[in-house]
Formats: sequence, structure tokens, C-alpha cells
Amino acid sequence: MRIAQTRLSIDTKPREIKEITADIARWVECQNISTGLLTAYILHTSASLLIQENASPDVRHDLDAFLRRLVPEDISLYRHNDEGPDDVPAHIKSALTQTQLTIPVSDGRLQLGVWQGIFLFEHRASPHNRALVLTLIGEVDETPPSG
Amino acid sequence: MRIAQTRLSIDTKPREIKEITADIARWVECQNISTGLLTAYILHTSASLLIQENASPDVRHDLDAFLRRLVPEDISLYRHNDEGPDDVPAHIKSALTQTQLTIPVSDGRLQLGVWQGIFLFEHRASPHNRALVLTLIGEVDETPPSG
Amino acid sequence: MRIAQTRLSIDTKPREIKEITADIARWVECQNISTGLLTAYILHTSASLLIQENASPDVRHDLDAFLRRLVPEDISLYRHNDEGPDDVPAHIKSALTQTQLTIPVSDGRLQLGVWQGIFLFEHRASPHNRALVLTLIGEVDETPPSG
Repeated sequence: MRIAQTRLSIDTKPREIKEITADIARWVECQNISTGLLTAYILHTSASLLIQENASPDVRHDLDAFLRRLVPEDISLYRHNDEGPDDVPAHIKSALTQTQLTIPVSDGRLQLGVWQGIFLFEHRASPHNRALVLTLIGEVDETPPSG
Repeated sequence: MRIAQTRLSIDTKPREIKEITADIARWVECQNISTGLLTAYILHTSASLLIQENASPDVRHDLDAFLRRLVPEDISLYRHNDEGPDDVPAHIKSALTQTQLTIPVSDGRLQLGVWQGIFLFEHRASPHNRALVLTLIGEVDETPPSG
Repeated sequence: MRIAQTRLSIDTKPREIKEITADIARWVECQNISTGLLTAYILHTSASLLIQENASPDVRHDLDAFLRRLVPEDISLYRHNDEGPDDVPAHIKSALTQTQLTIPVSDGRLQLGVWQGIFLFEHRASPHNRALVLTLIGEVDETPPSG
């Protein structure tokens, strides 16, 4: 058993639901761990993580529109207003989604469903640089390299 | 330290909140791991996982009714409509609940609270076959078998 | 690689969002594990866990007020009413937040973002004693003690 850990830095656009599956998969596949668990953790409270459908961008649009209706950017609703009307809604949307995801690894690869992607959900109305910690725990691949 | 991994296949009824505690507990108890962590991961984005009260079915009914009011199956609200009026609501309900649960294991057993059960929440209006990956990491039980 | 596990007992006030970062950090820092993952798991379905901003108490107030508007304590909405008007809303709020959090550990310490705290969210209208299981998996610190 072995553990590997790294940091990932992701630039986001305002309110972007950005697919980061490839960024995470690339690192996992270099760790020489065959069977394990990958945990992605975001170091922020106004952006969050999400497993969602990776096929239709309309599904992400509909999820974003739903959350905007659910958590309106109306300052009369909130006490904490000194960071802009999108700040408290960003914290609430983060609480309703995920700060952390743990995903199985088999044969050295992330075991996602066929239609699943990993997304970083930027809840602020301005671009940000977001930091994630990736941690992989598992069994070292004992297969000798071929050739 | 050791890792074990398996797949679980679960048949669901439309919109069912199905208890799967026994299916998971049975596998955990055969792994000869005394202290550890079990991660259940669902390979879909229109069904999700949930820790909920295992006593009253009315609590599950009320949760389902709440989510139906919150995320109406009204196609005028959504852009992505080609998979039926229940498709986008299913993705939204999945985003608001869990794709993955990590549960402690002690003395070779899942450490759930007295009133806690593990549930698979089918968000689609038709029956499905759903796949989960279970991963258990922990210490091997060193106790010699009695008798 | 090593695993450590303990129980934590937390007294809550009605509807309190209580910071428990220090309770968890203190235990983690005594485990002599340098790089790893800490999983906090709450053994209840009417209280939950949350990563939230640790700076402004107004953000927590706004989150609580949002959830009270979203999940009203109106018994006419629910079938399960024999445990009081706050019981089903408590279960729904738990389902919308987290039963479990997994947080990276580096250099023997929790790797939280600058503004992140770990909170226990009491959803009932009365004080409770809540139990958590903490599990830490990681690499033993090989650094010889100085002096």
C-alpha cells in the first residue's frame, strides 16, 4: 500500500462548470497504483466539486439555472453583503454540492461511469484560480514493465 | 494494510429509495479487515446514494415529495428535454445528494448509527439496473480463528 | 501505512452550526501520520457535517436562514409528524448536506483552505449529544524526533 499526494491549480471563468476529469486522470495514471481510491478536495468555500453527466452541456446549463433560481443573488435576503451579491449564494451552493469526492481506481485508472465527468463548479461571478489537493491511496502495481 | 474492491449490481423500481445496507455489510464482513473505511461509489448521474433514517418509511416518502416539489418535472424549465421530463430533475437531485459515501469499519463491521441505513435513490421514472463500486481499505484482522 | 480511529462526542445547542475544526485537528496531530486522509463521519440523520467559511458568522446565519426557508417546519407538508415539526426538515437538511467529509493531511496536519472550517450542523430544535467517528489513513512519519 502506498499514498501519493499533489496540488492542482485550475483557472475558472465566472460561474463556470469546468470539466477537470482529464487533469485528475492524467496524474492518477502516473502513480503506479493499480487498485485504490482517489480523493479530490477543493480548498475553497465559494466553488465546489461535482460528478455530472459529461455528454450534454445543456444538462450543466439546466443545473446552473436551477441553482440560480433556488439561491437568488438578492442582497435583501442575506446579512453578509460586503463581498458582493454573489458571495453568500456561492457559499450556499457550495454547501449543497461537494467539497470533496472520492472515486475508485482499478487497473491504474479512475473508475467513472460511462457518462460521468468530474467538474469544478465556480459559484462566483468573477474568474478565479482554484486549488485542489489530490490524494491517492492504493496497492502498487507489481506487474513488471513489458519489453 | 490491505485493499479490496468489488462491483455491486442493484435493480431499482421507478423513483425508489432502496435500502442497500445489507448488500454492502455482507461483502464488508467477508473481507477480513478489522479497522478501515468502506467507500461506495455509484457509476451513474441520475441515481444517487444517501445515508438516511432506516426506521420510518414516511421519512423517505417526505424526502422524495420534498425533492419533487423542489425540482419539478416541468419541461418548460429545462433546455435538455430529449430524454424525458424526469431526466434533468434526476441529474439535479443527484447533484444535491451523493455520488459517493465513505463509512468507517470497526471490528470488521460497518459503523453506522443506530438509525442509519444506506440507500440507493433512483431518480428516474423507470426501473433501472445500477452499478456500484465498493472499495474497502484497512488493517487485516490478526486474530487467530477460534476453535 | 497505518490506520487510526477514534470517537468524538460533541454537545450541540438547538440549530447550532458549531465549529469542530480544533477538536479534529488536535487528534490528527497526535497520530504521527505525515501524509494521509482524515474521514469524519457523523452517526446521525438529523445533524450533518459541513465545510464552510470560518470567518464571518453572518455566512452561517444566512445558510441557516436559507435552509429554513427551503425546508419549512410546516407539519402539513410531511407525513411523518410524531417526532415534532423539526424532525422531517432535519432529515431533509441532512440529506442536502454531508454525513461524511474526507480531508487531506500533509506534514501531519489537516490541509484546509485558509477560509475553511469544519462544522457540525445541528438541525433539531433541541440540544443534542452527537457522536462522530474519525478515521485517519496514511504514512507514518519517519522523521526522528529532534534533540
